[in-house]
Amino acid sequence: MSKIALLGYGVVARGVLEVLAENGALLARRLGAPLEVKSILVRRDFPGDPNAGKFVRDFAGICADPEIEAVVEVMGGEEPAYTYTAAALRAGKHVVTANKQLLAHRGQELLDIAGETGVNYLFEASVGGGIPILRPLRECLSANRVDEVCGILNGTTNYILTEMIQCGTDFSEALSQAQALGYAEADPTADVEGLDAQRKICILADLAFGRNMPPEAVSAQGIRAVSREDVEYAQRLGCVVKLLGRALRLPDGTAAAYVAPHFISKTNLLSHVDGVMNGIVVRGNAVGECLFYGPGAGGRATASAVVSDVVDALLHASRRKDWGWAASGAPEPQSAAAVVSRWFLRTDAGLAPIGAAFGNVQFLSHSGAPAGEYAFLTPPMTETALLARVGDMPLLSRYRVLD
Amino acid sequence: MSKIALLGYGVVARGVLEVLAENGALLARRLGAPLEVKSILVRRDFPGDPNAGKFVRDFAGICADPEIEAVVEVMGGEEPAYTYTAAALRAGKHVVTANKQLLAHRGQELLDIAGETGVNYLFEASVGGGIPILRPLRECLSANRVDEVCGILNGTTNYILTEMIQCGTDFSEALSQAQALGYAEADPTADVEGLDAQRKICILADLAFGRNMPPEAVSAQGIRAVSREDVEYAQRLGCVVKLLGRALRLPDGTAAAYVAPHFISKTNLLSHVDGVMNGIVVRGNAVGECLFYGPGAGGRATASAVVSDVVDALLHASRRKDWGWAASGAPEPQSAAAVVSRWFLRTDAGLAPIGAAFGNVQFLSHSGAPAGEYAFLTPPMTETALLARVGDMPLLSRYRVLD
Repeated sequence: MSKIALLGYGVVARGVLEVLAENGALLARRLGAPLEVKSILVRRDFPGDPNAGKFVRDFAGICADPEIEAVVEVMGGEEPAYTYTAAALRAGKHVVTANKQLLAHRGQELLDIAGETGVNYLFEASVGGGIPILRPLRECLSANRVDEVCGILNGTTNYILTEMIQCGTDFSEALSQAQALGYAEADPTADVEGLDAQRKICILADLAFGRNMPPEAVSAQGIRAVSREDVEYAQRLGCVVKLLGRALRLPDGTAAAYVAPHFISKTNLLSHVDGVMNGIVVRGNAVGECLFYGPGAGGRATASAVVSDVVDALLHASRRKDWGWAASGAPEPQSAAAVVSRWFLRTDAGLAPIGAAFGNVQFLSHSGAPAGEYAFLTPPMTETALLARVGDMPLLSRYRVLD
Repeated sequence: MSKIALLGYGVVARGVLEVLAENGALLARRLGAPLEVKSILVRRDFPGDPNAGKFVRDFAGICADPEIEAVVEVMGGEEPAYTYTAAALRAGKHVVTANKQLLAHRGQELLDIAGETGVNYLFEASVGGGIPILRPLRECLSANRVDEVCGILNGTTNYILTEMIQCGTDFSEALSQAQALGYAEADPTADVEGLDAQRKICILADLAFGRNMPPEAVSAQGIRAVSREDVEYAQRLGCVVKLLGRALRLPDGTAAAYVAPHFISKTNLLSHVDGVMNGIVVRGNAVGECLFYGPGAGGRATASAVVSDVVDALLHASRRKDWGWAASGAPEPQSAAAVVSRWFLRTDAGLAPIGAAFGNVQFLSHSGAPAGEYAFLTPPMTETALLARVGDMPLLSRYRVLD
């Protein structure tokens, strides 16, 4: 019998219990022994709950319990998750987590602790929910120099944008709808402002480049400013608007990561990742481009990744996984302003300043556009170069364009 | 220094040499030692070849060389690949392969030998070329009961169908074009008749269900009979024609696999997998559906998977990977005739027999259709039930429809 503890009793923890109940026989066969949740750390009462017998209020008891081989941290947030995770790893227990915030900020420290005590710290569920992406990136593509990771990393914002594109609703209406359906939280800030995607692209960059990418180095722009007009211009260009997290290796040997809404061509498979789904493209110098697609959130999907990690941790108990995630070294992170793109610009500044800044550009027509509004694409250039040309010209909107 | 041997000197072997040369420093860092190809088994001369110094004609020498830790078998075909692989595994060498034919027919035997001698037999490259699919299926989704694997597994036929769909060419024209571009071989039988996809869906079924799926149990229908008319009817239905390999767990506890062209709805992401690319959907009872997309062939892409497997084999030398692929047991393979689908049928048999067989069906219009030709969709039913209803009604075409 393999025994584990859950820290937290939210959607993912319940998903884990559901999957263990449903696939118990299959998991026992894979592990060679039944897998059982012995304790669940809760912070409040759940009257009449069928799992009440497993509830504990004190983490120290879990940490000191020699029967518990692995701890599943699904409480979220940086503290007390960091303290508990570090303590569990130091106590020789494997830790499996879905906590992207903790990983993005302190993952490297925790991996070091896991390395010292020779246990596993696994976190497939922290990016892309149930989609296998971190282990494929590190293990199946290990022959590659990874040059880019780029993806739709947040289901809530992708749902909102998909509604805006397919139904012509505006942002606030689509957000209310997402909240009504339970896809967005009452306080949607972390999703809508791109913070959730920022954490995830940090973790992807950490593993893709083997070097810590601190969240402070990653600019995050959300989707609040995406207008119906932008969505319509995108359609005219054969594109859709999607919020992307991107991490790139730049020609000068540095690396940059950022989160921002993009115009993506409909010939790019990412443009067809709709609704609450996630899709992540990895570009390696041997393989070319691969895409990984699936449910990026939800209790059962996330539990799929968590429980698979538990199986892996228990089967490979004696072998620390080396994630190749170093605190420093190359490629050094730098600002995303150095990343080259074509740009879509929309302005009501008039023709003269556009001509002065960009020369002969081709304008995009839009039947509903007010008089004096112009939209156009620029040649490829860095954000720094773009902003130098734009100067003090007022912009109504600005998007990177991805083919 | 880690030394390996290559068996074969074709496109994949050259890709492996290219990737090792280009990413040598990175691989040495990951492995803790440089990785070097010591010997290449060739069957003929390559005058003036830069690798001539590594060429050997005798496999026994490779097998007896204590310096060679891993053998990369990229010669293809069942023999002598089986004999060499078995001998290398028995000699305590890891074997990495891209040989789908050998795996589909005798993979389970070879895994047993690897298990006895405690070495790795790894074959990520055998399905989906460079796409990480086998290890994600077995490791990252191990919490799931896998209910279905379904994919575009052959780039040649997908290129031909994409040309037919996007340019209105017919099959033979698109095939010639694929041959001119090097996407199809002079003898295209294995691709066009679905045999390559058949081997790959066998391997996927083996791993998804944990039970050997013999190729003899898997019906394979190719794309030779796909006509321009079928492609146009599909468009009218909001579908495209794609060759799919599918393996499903059936409600009665058995499993079935087959290869056939399908009508796939454009709302299904697989319908957007175009050209020579591959895409594979895995449906698990916890995760739901995930899709893995990327280059399914080509020297460098396949080498990405091969070299990543070599790294994995060398890093985890002491641990045999248990692929959970048993010779017998549940789910028992059965005929694909038991798989339920909606069907697209096209016939010139006249209205009376259609009405007698299917009652009130809704006909699909097609402006170019000759008088007396009718096309329609059936309700969901097994192939067995369909054929019983069709009786001796002559059909012009018949496709399963996938939403």
